Amino acid sequence: MKLKIVALAGGVGGAKLVHGLAQILPPEDLTVVVNTGDDFEHYSLYICPDLDTVCYTLAGLANPETGWGRVDETWQAIENAVRLGGPEWFNLGDRDLGTHLERTRRLKAGQTLSQITRDFCKSWGIRQTILPMSDHPVRTIVETGEGDLAFQEYFVHRRCEPKVTGFRFEGVETAEAAPGVLEAIDAAEAVIICPSNPWVSIDPILVVGDIRRAIEAKTIVAVSPIIGGQTVKGPAAKMYAELDIQPSARAVAEHYRGMLSGFVLDNMDAELASNINIPTLTTDTLMDSLTKRARLARDVLNFIRRINK
Amino acid sequence: MKLKIVALAGGVGGAKLVHGLAQILPPEDLTVVVNTGDDFEHYSLYICPDLDTVCYTLAGLANPETGWGRVDETWQAIENAVRLGGPEWFNLGDRDLGTHLERTRRLKAGQTLSQITRDFCKSWGIRQTILPMSDHPVRTIVETGEGDLAFQEYFVHRRCEPKVTGFRFEGVETAEAAPGVLEAIDAAEAVIICPSNPWVSIDPILVVGDIRRAIEAKTIVAVSPIIGGQTVKGPAAKMYAELDIQPSARAVAEHYRGMLSGFVLDNMDAELASNINIPTLTTDTLMDSLTKRARLARDVLNFIRRINK
Repeated sequence: MKLKIVALAGGVGGAKLVHGLAQILPPEDLTVVVNTGDDFEHYSLYICPDLDTVCYTLAGLANPETGWGRVDETWQAIENAVRLGGPEWFNLGDRDLGTHLERTRRLKAGQTLSQITRDFCKSWGIRQTILPMSDHPVRTIVETGEGDLAFQEYFVHRRCEPKVTGFRFEGVETAEAAPGVLEAIDAAEAVIICPSNPWVSIDPILVVGDIRRAIEAKTIVAVSPIIGGQTVKGPAAKMYAELDIQPSARAVAEHYRGMLSGFVLDNMDAELASNINIPTLTTDTLMDSLTKRARLARDVLNFIRRINK
Repeated sequence: MKLKIVALAGGVGGAKLVHGLAQILPPEDLTVVVNTGDDFEHYSLYICPDLDTVCYTLAGLANPETGWGRVDETWQAIENAVRLGGPEWFNLGDRDLGTHLERTRRLKAGQTLSQITRDFCKSWGIRQTILPMSDHPVRTIVETGEGDLAFQEYFVHRRCEPKVTGFRFEGVETAEAAPGVLEAIDAAEAVIICPSNPWVSIDPILVVGDIRRAIEAKTIVAVSPIIGGQTVKGPAAKMYAELDIQPSARAVAEHYRGMLSGFVLDNMDAELASNINIPTLTTDTLMDSLTKRARLARDVLNFIRRINK
């Protein structure tokens, strides 16, 4: 299918739809802009969980069980660090460490995250364009009843337990879109907001000023990460509830209100469609097999074609 | 045997004699002061090759084939980093990486190298006291016909190929002995200079001003790392030759001239002993088995006893 697409993606859910899109679109027609608000330093290494999940997934290197991390992974380094008293709350596989080591080395040598990502994608045989949203650090802070927590602290270390009261994105005032992002949006026939967490995977991208301005003129279609009031993975539904919003596909559509040209929700939520006053596509959005990733991607692309007609 | 000893050590050769001494002396009687002039940053991790070799050897974790690095090692992380374009000239095993990750994490958190080394030794079940020579950075620079090279650059990356013209130790003017070093020397009945490279393993320790002053009053015995004009491992003989000094046990004794109370050389070099005008011990110094490490250690300790009588 010929359709120039920019996809905005976070981690596992986003990576699945991106993987589906990659099976349908020619590689030159797909640009993925990935959340970097989750990036953090651990053991002095610079780690980009969402970028790595998207890249590993497209390269066929992802662990199919977890959706993140590497397949055929070993854990010697972290086990030995933990034995010496190091923190064990974040998984660092040996193969995965190779990525963090080389990325950190290059960053310290003055390369930008977008340059590094381009080179890594080339090494991994990824032909689509994968871009970090920005080369400037943006840090997602989760405001909770127990104080402010850096995202990975909240998400991995505290297992999303603290009650969320809000979010903020440090550094976003001065962050600019990474090279290539605005050009890709400009050339795109549509922007797809992947079924990633609206609060902590997509909002960090949307708050980067020049990205927000660039996509406003575009056809934007979002795919709900919430199915039947729940998420497949991750705390999005819990976050809506803690912020006193009923978690639902409708809440997601509402989240992106004013931006969207279309909204995709699951068959299970079909009855919500009539309350969403933009074009909707109701389909099977659960991507629990490789085939279903491609099928959802094709459905979304056809939906976009109808909208763009 | 009861004898309070401070051993000055570099990497593999030093570690072997230290291992022998550890089999003879009660743990509380052995303090090892280790060269940190080889330390460097690689892939943003802080690596202490000599400290790790000494500790891995004492802990029984060293690779018996190489004398350095970890036994049962795997190489997933570095292989993946190299695949992404990272430098491959320095071996970083996965288990070994655990040490570098946790050390770097702690250094960034403000701990000193000597605190970290103490904690690591405890984790590894090492009961002797292992001290970095200094908590301040001292960097061995090898001056060569091809310009100045950081030690690991010369030693590992360039495989000791460039012709040596001299050495210098950056940072040594302001470096002080690490906590515990001067106290251990003060309490020691003798200082043993292990059969490590005089230029780049022992000199960096001796140029730390307060260490040099503290050991001057002591019985100091050196063991020659040169046997029959050659080294078991490493470039010491090549360095002597390039500096227009005939490499020999005698050259080593001359290197430490004015400091030594006794000198230990190999049976193969027996005829040189008469030209060394301090007490000498001629014995089998080749530590090519675990038994021979302990035997040489016992010989050296008995030699010290005779000197100290």
